[in-house]
Amino acid sequence: MSRLIVLYNQPEDPEAFDAHYRDVHAPIVRSYPKLRDLKTCKPEGVGGRPSPYYLMAEMTFDSPEDLDEALASEAGSASGRDLRNFATAGAALFIVDDAADA
Amino acid sequence: MSRLIVLYNQPEDPEAFDAHYRDVHAPIVRSYPKLRDLKTCKPEGVGGRPSPYYLMAEMTFDSPEDLDEALASEAGSASGRDLRNFATAGAALFIVDDAADA
Repeated sequence: MSRLIVLYNQPEDPEAFDAHYRDVHAPIVRSYPKLRDLKTCKPEGVGGRPSPYYLMAEMTFDSPEDLDEALASEAGSASGRDLRNFATAGAALFIVDDAADA
Repeated sequence: MSRLIVLYNQPEDPEAFDAHYRDVHAPIVRSYPKLRDLKTCKPEGVGGRPSPYYLMAEMTFDSPEDLDEALASEAGSASGRDLRNFATAGAALFIVDDAADA
């Protein structure tokens, strides 16, 4: 399994962020070819410190090739462009390959 | 399931970091009470950009209560103290509760 992980920084307007993610961004992500699963959650902090991120989105694929195909697709481009519409506080993106543990 | 996720920034000396993580830190984490799984991986970047993090560690527990118990244990304290020995470039820590999706 390969996962694309996106960690969103705290938005200025969490309500507007949530609405855009739910109504616009998530539907684009769900149209990725070969997407197995989209999981989102609001992280909590550890030991009394706030979470460094507001939202974590995990997109799961069967293989790194499927993930690459999704990112190269029209939906992949559209989701990248859409980040500018709501993730204005920034986000960290990376890929983890669960078959190749460190 | 509840996961404690730690994202380590790029270390100055990756080889020394890896050795410390493998030989000192991971054994402490594996002694957490009620730990179900420790998974580590080296994230890759997206779209030609480097990964913002060097190493991701995911520690899985059956429940938020088990996770809290692990953090409050002697092993939990020891792992927190040990971060100062090798994670000098910093790390982002947070908890995700997979039963409570956003």
